[in-house]
Amino acid sequence: MQNTQVLLAARPVGAPKLSDFRVFQTELPELKEGEVLLEAVYLSVDPYMRGRMSDTKSYAAPMQVGDVMVGGVVGRVLRSNDPGFSYGDYAEAFTGWQHYGISAAKQLRKLDPQAGPLSASLSVMGIPGLTAYFGLLDVCKPKRGETVVVSGAAGAVGSIVGQIARLKGCPVVGIAGSDEKVKWLTKELGFDSAFNYKTAPNTHAKLKDLCSKGIDCYFDNVGGTITDAVFGLLNPNARIAICGQISQYNNTEAELGPRNLSQILVKTATVRGFLVMHYLDQAREALIEMGGWLREGKLKYRETFVDGLENAPAAFLGLLNGENTGKMLVRVAPER
Amino acid sequence: MQNTQVLLAARPVGAPKLSDFRVFQTELPELKEGEVLLEAVYLSVDPYMRGRMSDTKSYAAPMQVGDVMVGGVVGRVLRSNDPGFSYGDYAEAFTGWQHYGISAAKQLRKLDPQAGPLSASLSVMGIPGLTAYFGLLDVCKPKRGETVVVSGAAGAVGSIVGQIARLKGCPVVGIAGSDEKVKWLTKELGFDSAFNYKTAPNTHAKLKDLCSKGIDCYFDNVGGTITDAVFGLLNPNARIAICGQISQYNNTEAELGPRNLSQILVKTATVRGFLVMHYLDQAREALIEMGGWLREGKLKYRETFVDGLENAPAAFLGLLNGENTGKMLVRVAPER
Repeated sequence: MQNTQVLLAARPVGAPKLSDFRVFQTELPELKEGEVLLEAVYLSVDPYMRGRMSDTKSYAAPMQVGDVMVGGVVGRVLRSNDPGFSYGDYAEAFTGWQHYGISAAKQLRKLDPQAGPLSASLSVMGIPGLTAYFGLLDVCKPKRGETVVVSGAAGAVGSIVGQIARLKGCPVVGIAGSDEKVKWLTKELGFDSAFNYKTAPNTHAKLKDLCSKGIDCYFDNVGGTITDAVFGLLNPNARIAICGQISQYNNTEAELGPRNLSQILVKTATVRGFLVMHYLDQAREALIEMGGWLREGKLKYRETFVDGLENAPAAFLGLLNGENTGKMLVRVAPER
Repeated sequence: MQNTQVLLAARPVGAPKLSDFRVFQTELPELKEGEVLLEAVYLSVDPYMRGRMSDTKSYAAPMQVGDVMVGGVVGRVLRSNDPGFSYGDYAEAFTGWQHYGISAAKQLRKLDPQAGPLSASLSVMGIPGLTAYFGLLDVCKPKRGETVVVSGAAGAVGSIVGQIARLKGCPVVGIAGSDEKVKWLTKELGFDSAFNYKTAPNTHAKLKDLCSKGIDCYFDNVGGTITDAVFGLLNPNARIAICGQISQYNNTEAELGPRNLSQILVKTATVRGFLVMHYLDQAREALIEMGGWLREGKLKYRETFVDGLENAPAAFLGLLNGENTGKMLVRVAPER
C-alpha cells in the first residue's frame, strides 16, 4: 500500500522555506504485533517543530534530513494488530506528516468521537490545552486578583491561558499580532485587554498603561523585545513561565538583548522553563476540568484549518508567521 | 558630643569614586526612650550598597545625596535608654558609616562576645552567611552528587556557598578573580576546583572541562559573561539562584547579552532572584547549624580588614574591584 509523506529535505537556515520539505511516496511496511495502522485525519503543526528541524541539542533529539516530519495526529484506525483498537476507532498518535501511520498501540490515546470534536484533541483538549493549564496553574500559580500577561495570546496555548486565568479571578492582558486577534481575545474570550504589538508604538508604555498594578504572572510564548518590556514591569515575587520563544526560533545565532537577571533579582522573581511532557501523568484530571469548562461555555477555542497533507509545510510556515488564530491544523482526510 | 559620618556626596555615574563620599562632623542628637547609643567597632561594606547610591527603584528605597551611607555595624553600647541593653554590650546594628550611631533597641541584635569573634556577626554568622545558606539550600536545593557552580566564589557569600554545597555532598566549582583566591578556595576551603576568570582564555571551555557532568545548581553573585557561560552548560531542571550581579552594578544602561530564555526553556531550568531579608524569620535555626559547622571546623571564613572610618569609601571601592578575600570589613575602633 502506497503512503505519502512529508520529509525534512534540508535543515532551514533562518526562516524555513517550502523547499526545506519534500513530498515523498513510499510503500507502507507490514503491520507487526501490537501495532495499529491509522489514516491521518488532522495533523498538528506547532512551533516546537522548528527546533527539531535544527541540528541543535535540545530536550528532544533533532530530526535528521530525510526523516518524516514529526507531530501529533488524529487518525482513524484502518487495521489493528492489538486487541485495544478496531477498524473505525479514532486515536491521537505521534505519527507525523504522512497519510498513513503505523504506531504501537500503547503509544496511542483512544478518542471518543461522541465526547466532542475530534480536532479538539489536538488543541484545547490535547497538548496545547494541557500546556496552557499546567504552565499557568503550576508554574505561574496566579492568585485571585493578580495581573496575568500572555504573549502569543491568540495562539493555541495563549488563548487558553488567558481564559483559565480569568476563571481564576485574574485580570488578563493579551499580546497578539493583529487587530482581528485582539478583537477576538477581548470580545469573545473575555480578556480584560489586549493589544497588537505590531502597531503599538511602544510595547512598554502600552503594557504599563494596561497593567496599572504591575505584572504578577507572565506566560511567555514569544520572547524577544515583547518579553523585555514585560520584565520592566514585574511586581515583587512575579512568576514567569517560559513556554515558547517563537521570536527566536529562526535566529542563526543567539540574539542580544538587555540582560534581565538584575530585574529578576530586585523583584525576587522566578523564571521557569517547562515542558508539558513532564505533566502527562496529571493530564486526565486536567482534561476532566477543562472538559467541564468547555461544556459550561467558560472556555472557548478556535482552530485554523489548512486542507491537504501537501500543504502542511505552508501551514507550518504560516504558523511561524502568526497566520493562525487559535490552533493551526492540517485537514488530511474528512471525518467519516 | 561630636560624631563623624561618611555621607553620600554625589550619586555615582558608572564606577563610584572617592569624591562621591564626604566625611562630615555633626552633633549627636539626644537619646530618646527605647534608644541605644553605640560606638561602631566594625562596619560592613557590601555590593548592594552600590544600588542604594543610585536613584533607581529597587527592593529598597534609594539613599538621598547627603544621607549617611547605610550598612550593618558591630557596635559597643555606650549609653542605653532601653532595659535590654547596658554599657559595654555588643550589638549588630544598621546605623551605617559613622563613629557613633543611635538605634531603636528593637532593631538591634545583641551579640555574645564569648560565642565567637564579633566580626563574624557581619560575615559568616550574619547576613552574608545567611544569604549563602538560604540561597543555596532554599533556592538551588542541591541534591547529593549534583554539580554546583558559584561565581564570586571567594567573596563573603560565595565562599560559604561552596563549603555548604560540599557539606551536602556536591562537587563544587568556584569562579574567582585572582590566582590567590583560587588557591584559597581549593587548598583551604575544599572546593573541588576553581579558576581565575580574568586569566582563563575561555570561560565556557574552562567550565565545560571542570563540569564534565554539566551544571545542576548555579549560585550567581556576578552576572555578565561569566553567567552566560554557565547558561550554556545547564543540565535539565537546573536551579539558578540570583544573589548578586556585581558585574552590572556600575552600568549606566542595561548591558546587552545573549538572550537566555530559550536555554531556560529547553533545560526546564528555574531562575530565581532572592533576598535574605525574606528569610530572617528562619535565621535562628540557620545560625545554630552554621555555628555547629564552624566549631567542628567544617566551615572556614576569612575577613579582609581596612582600618579607619575615613577609609570606608576606599574599602567599598576595593570591594567592587574584588580586592577582598572573604568578607570586607572596616575596623572603626578596637575591640575592648
